[in-house]
Amino acid sequence: MQARLSTPLSRRLNIDVPVFQAPMASVTTAALAAAVAKAGGLGGFGCAYMEPDAIEREVEVFRKITDRPFQLNFFVAPQPAPVPAEAQREAIAALTPFYAELGLPAPGPVQAPYAPDLDAQLDMALRLRPAAVTFHLNLMAEPRVRAFQQAGVLVGGSATCIEEAKRLEALGVDFVVAQGGEAGGHRGTWTRDAPRALTGTLALTRMVVNSVDVPVVSAGGIMDGAGIAAILALGAQAAQIGTAFIPCPESGATEAYRNAILNTEEDDTTITDRVSGKPARGLVNRYVRESARSDFPKLVFPAQSQLTAKMRSAAAQAANPDFMTLWAGQAAALARRMPAGELVRTLEREALEAIERLSSLRRQVS
Amino acid sequence: MQARLSTPLSRRLNIDVPVFQAPMASVTTAALAAAVAKAGGLGGFGCAYMEPDAIEREVEVFRKITDRPFQLNFFVAPQPAPVPAEAQREAIAALTPFYAELGLPAPGPVQAPYAPDLDAQLDMALRLRPAAVTFHLNLMAEPRVRAFQQAGVLVGGSATCIEEAKRLEALGVDFVVAQGGEAGGHRGTWTRDAPRALTGTLALTRMVVNSVDVPVVSAGGIMDGAGIAAILALGAQAAQIGTAFIPCPESGATEAYRNAILNTEEDDTTITDRVSGKPARGLVNRYVRESARSDFPKLVFPAQSQLTAKMRSAAAQAANPDFMTLWAGQAAALARRMPAGELVRTLEREALEAIERLSSLRRQVS
Repeated sequence: MQARLSTPLSRRLNIDVPVFQAPMASVTTAALAAAVAKAGGLGGFGCAYMEPDAIEREVEVFRKITDRPFQLNFFVAPQPAPVPAEAQREAIAALTPFYAELGLPAPGPVQAPYAPDLDAQLDMALRLRPAAVTFHLNLMAEPRVRAFQQAGVLVGGSATCIEEAKRLEALGVDFVVAQGGEAGGHRGTWTRDAPRALTGTLALTRMVVNSVDVPVVSAGGIMDGAGIAAILALGAQAAQIGTAFIPCPESGATEAYRNAILNTEEDDTTITDRVSGKPARGLVNRYVRESARSDFPKLVFPAQSQLTAKMRSAAAQAANPDFMTLWAGQAAALARRMPAGELVRTLEREALEAIERLSSLRRQVS
Repeated sequence: MQARLSTPLSRRLNIDVPVFQAPMASVTTAALAAAVAKAGGLGGFGCAYMEPDAIEREVEVFRKITDRPFQLNFFVAPQPAPVPAEAQREAIAALTPFYAELGLPAPGPVQAPYAPDLDAQLDMALRLRPAAVTFHLNLMAEPRVRAFQQAGVLVGGSATCIEEAKRLEALGVDFVVAQGGEAGGHRGTWTRDAPRALTGTLALTRMVVNSVDVPVVSAGGIMDGAGIAAILALGAQAAQIGTAFIPCPESGATEAYRNAILNTEEDDTTITDRVSGKPARGLVNRYVRESARSDFPKLVFPAQSQLTAKMRSAAAQAANPDFMTLWAGQAAALARRMPAGELVRTLEREALEAIERLSSLRRQVS
């Protein structure tokens, strides 16, 4: 006999541990998602920058390893109008010195489409029938939500405030991902000024749980089993965990990125919109610091992401953290180097221990 | 028989519920602290702006009501050098339109001392022998810490990052108050840029618990028993709760302030240093919004606090929330109107229920 943790949502998703491996764009791999899923958690794919055939390929690899559940996550962000030449020139000029330091020529102007077509991505997702589809940055169109649900796919969306949670519930999602201020990566905020909508995970989770009737998944700053026990105590039904999985050997992170996370000893993160055009939390590096001045020109999302892409990938290849993408949550200092399956089992064991410890604080008095 | 919650720290403080009523300057009263203490929590006095004889008077009132434990809290902030006349003129000119809207003349220049003398406050605190003395904004001098401890008074200090927690431990405090980003009122940060040191309560609590061996008290966004259960799951030994006590009839908050908290339906807080000169979290009102522009002149803490004092108190008397002090945490939307003793009992019951619910998520599998 063995104790396990379960919630209505984890049972509905048929997972053994109420842990969602966060669908981190550019970091998730079939190997990571499969290792998590095999260990009982929900595997996750960050599909934001993936063309449909790449999504299909990754899911095929995953399914050769395991038939356990996974989620596909998408960014709901409209293609911006073509960027005017003048804005391009200014943004390129601002980036040129960074490119030069890496021995690279200035980037060329970016051209639409700036990211894969969302409709094509979602058509593919429907064909692949994952256990869940989640969306970020805005609401998914209602007919899409219904189509997934009719196919037996659970649909979730992310909220950074009470209003967003209520609008997700009104849309009919199956669960809300409450993205606390601690969370690494892109802020999901779409109804407010994102850098101001940084309500901490503890406060946000409790407010969202109290505001909607659908299950809540809590994200942001959860790195171990004590964190999982904490958000379950707040009434959430699962923890979505990203940063803790970045150092896993199965993740798509470069060694330099892994090391940056593992060497973190403090909350050294900040919010920047200079990498992709949308606010996101990551470790502060030279690019983030030097591009933070208010007059630093940038393009809108996701055009800026394209413009900085070669700088970031060249830096990653050169193991130069100064100009890399280093998305991370505020509790990165708690990261451990561990295979993903072992991490899921560790998280489960720690959560059970935390609940046990918590129960032992009760004493009977006459 | 009745179940109660206890931790090593709550037992050492001889309290029945691991709840510290936050020592909110200008909001705490003997009636509030006594109601909390009688119900089993730790009463708290925010002494930052109180002269020693006022502290003595309040503690006398408290002790006529109950002999239960309480804490006295102090701001460790050096008196600034006298403010140059030019800086005074600029800061006064910026505030004059707000004063005018309230039908008041422009404020006069402020003169040192800008706040009560800390040494005199601490001498009084030692004579009064509370269960605990806590300090905020910086480290208390080591001989002071020792003197309190030799008198049987526990000493605690606040930390907003791992480094501050470690420095508090090195100083020899009895406990560390981890002030998460959700917390209302003044940021305790003294080693970093305060508006950047906004690590959420969940992340900060867990990182501090993992970084020091002394007991940790968690603060920020905790409004109900589920929040208490959550921070106990993270390994904290008590919850320090402020905003939830503001609407209590025993608090020193004006009716307009109470209503502002009770009418909050979202996290509508921000960090501002334009009220007192130091960054603090509160509800956004007209003054906070209009003074937010980067070139708005302000004096250093606590001179700015003196300069805005009449504006804030006149606004409070006129029940005009536009220019009042409205410190509040990010989860203010969860506030309830309830007498303080009833709130403590409710918090305790809810925490026990949350732990019970959490335990029930465990299932035995073969």
